[in-house]
Amino acid sequence: MEAIFTRRSVRSYSDEPVEKEKIDKLLRAGMQAPSAMNKQPWEFLVIQSKKTLIDLSKMSMFAKMVASASLAIILLGDYREGQSQKFFPQDMSAASENILLEATELNLGAVWLGVHPISQRQKYIKDLFKLPEGVIPFSVIAIGYPKNKESNKFVDRYRQDKVHFERY
Amino acid sequence: MEAIFTRRSVRSYSDEPVEKEKIDKLLRAGMQAPSAMNKQPWEFLVIQSKKTLIDLSKMSMFAKMVASASLAIILLGDYREGQSQKFFPQDMSAASENILLEATELNLGAVWLGVHPISQRQKYIKDLFKLPEGVIPFSVIAIGYPKNKESNKFVDRYRQDKVHFERY
Repeated sequence: MEAIFTRRSVRSYSDEPVEKEKIDKLLRAGMQAPSAMNKQPWEFLVIQSKKTLIDLSKMSMFAKMVASASLAIILLGDYREGQSQKFFPQDMSAASENILLEATELNLGAVWLGVHPISQRQKYIKDLFKLPEGVIPFSVIAIGYPKNKESNKFVDRYRQDKVHFERY
Repeated sequence: MEAIFTRRSVRSYSDEPVEKEKIDKLLRAGMQAPSAMNKQPWEFLVIQSKKTLIDLSKMSMFAKMVASASLAIILLGDYREGQSQKFFPQDMSAASENILLEATELNLGAVWLGVHPISQRQKYIKDLFKLPEGVIPFSVIAIGYPKNKESNKFVDRYRQDKVHFERY
């Protein structure tokens, strides 16, 4: 699948806004992810205002590019009913990866910023959006049209020595 | 992207073997996943022998379909050099999701079985393959041609109430 092989972490964006239809497609892609027992614990917080993007870019020294992104999608896990969080990272990561791949497919550039399990970053987002108890920040995905249109391109990461047959 | 929207958890497989070229493609898709600091902590253990598939199917009551799969790919994290495991579930989940999507693209059916963080399942795999200390089982993906060719199909999981703009 082409998007899997050409997706890169894209951290520089043009000023061109991302169409509403594309944002909708990204969210739909996230929600199609597999989740343990099909529980779909995710919630999506879409940020497009310049002010909030700048606030969000101060989450960590690795989040600076958020300030110049067209939008950011914050993935949250909703565990307000006391559900098991055993597969929280798995479920949320599958949704995050789907969004990155769909972005690539739509000629956008995106990068996944890790939030969970770094408590300082989680607290930053909880405080910024006054999240209720039980709604847990997982990741931030910064998205925009790539400044350099060649940003998404195949770089071979295959390593034969990482493949084992029948025994380790 | 079609595979994102048509992928389902497929648990019944035909006897048709999966071509070597497709297995190679699945592994390559896994290795193209994003990982924290691009560390690519993954290793892939490919199981095709009937005997080992049956052994693996006894990992838990949810793993029975592995016995009738054409193959299983066991995803392992390699932390033998004492690397940080902070983003272990994220990195391995992105690789797992890539494999599921590539399987869909190749007209295969696949299902993701959670292993980490369930210590009983992790021990089962560690013991079965005599894994060295620091090599950590993460997931098992059972794969085959679907018994029912219509298994992968679009089921709409979109939920408007899970989308929030600017504030939660």
